[in-house]
Amino acid sequence: MHRITVCFTPVQFPSYSHDDANAVAIDILRATSSICTAFMNGAERVIPVSTVEELKSHAGRHLIAAERDGIKLDFADIGNSPKYFTRALVAGKTIAYSTTNGTHTINLAAQCRNAAAGSFLNLSALCRWLEEGNRDAFLLCAGWKGRFNLEDAVFAGAVAQKLTDGGQFTTECDSALAAMDLWSLAKNDLPGYIRKAAQNERLRKINAADTIPYCHTIDLTDIVPVYRDGALIRN
Amino acid sequence: MHRITVCFTPVQFPSYSHDDANAVAIDILRATSSICTAFMNGAERVIPVSTVEELKSHAGRHLIAAERDGIKLDFADIGNSPKYFTRALVAGKTIAYSTTNGTHTINLAAQCRNAAAGSFLNLSALCRWLEEGNRDAFLLCAGWKGRFNLEDAVFAGAVAQKLTDGGQFTTECDSALAAMDLWSLAKNDLPGYIRKAAQNERLRKINAADTIPYCHTIDLTDIVPVYRDGALIRN
Repeated sequence: MHRITVCFTPVQFPSYSHDDANAVAIDILRATSSICTAFMNGAERVIPVSTVEELKSHAGRHLIAAERDGIKLDFADIGNSPKYFTRALVAGKTIAYSTTNGTHTINLAAQCRNAAAGSFLNLSALCRWLEEGNRDAFLLCAGWKGRFNLEDAVFAGAVAQKLTDGGQFTTECDSALAAMDLWSLAKNDLPGYIRKAAQNERLRKINAADTIPYCHTIDLTDIVPVYRDGALIRN
Repeated sequence: MHRITVCFTPVQFPSYSHDDANAVAIDILRATSSICTAFMNGAERVIPVSTVEELKSHAGRHLIAAERDGIKLDFADIGNSPKYFTRALVAGKTIAYSTTNGTHTINLAAQCRNAAAGSFLNLSALCRWLEEGNRDAFLLCAGWKGRFNLEDAVFAGAVAQKLTDGGQFTTECDSALAAMDLWSLAKNDLPGYIRKAAQNERLRKINAADTIPYCHTIDLTDIVPVYRDGALIRN
């Protein structure tokens, strides 16, 4: 039996064991949903970049997607909404990508044995990747600037529940148990459940209202973006 | 309307706004339950002490209650279970108190405008203290070494729900919303709900099985231990 661990925020990353696990970076609104969308539309590679300085070094060579606090950075080609990652713009391209919480989360997950980007868009494929990976699963939520957030936790709960139901995984992790409980409350009306979080300042700030329903659509793709040599690629 | 914020672990404390709030330190298993019990049994003051060195300076002058990873420290008079805080031992005494997660949490909460120790044992009195305090409420869970834990989150949810029902408080905080949802699942069978967490390594380590039912008993006391000048005293 493999174990499932859920970590609700990157600041808690050092408090959990994860080195030998297969990790999933989760930033439902919007980094990992946007990354899945980029690959659905034919992107070649997504390089997660933590700092603005490093990002500038990619300008001219790669497509730049970047935001801070939900606002596109002025030198970036596009911001951080899945709607920008169109086939016309991203097919065949390498994207240098930086967001408030998401890219840091991906770079932490990359310290584990293997790492992937997870979102509702690739939920089932992601769970198959974890099952075939045959290791413990470490689900790392981006949260928001060190704070817990509901949509990432609910998604972690969906993954934990699916893995548990599959029979190869179990958990003794309190955050995984809590996440599964939140998923049990959310699953029959996911848009309605997320709407209560959607009232909050954080979501107004990232101006995500138009992409919330899309980012909570389950299984639009079988692609699992996985981390290899500094970038996410198609599995 | 005042706001409720829930912080699931001390490592996330810097990520939240709390300076002007009335804070509640929450460590259900077992620090804040033991502290409430100490005052129920007549203790005069409880000094939260973070380091073992500082704790040793209290030896001979005060009763020493201390554990690390659930085990009583050898030079301490008693460990960290409510059952040790008997009237015979604690009445009229000042207790120097140090635990793995709880005392650090209390010392962080003490940085807010006012701070109290909360547990199921004083749930209703604690909510009245927050309502009469007439400020935002900041509910700080001890967790376990930087990790989320279920019993602290469920208790934070009970407080948040009671305050919201009272009509003077509202919340836009995702962790408060999640905590209230966990409480809604737990409240009709609290011992049964907590039992699922009780299977885990953490609880085996603190050997808390015998005190879990006691620590989840609601409203045994009207005492609210509040922080003044370096120690908790009766409100």
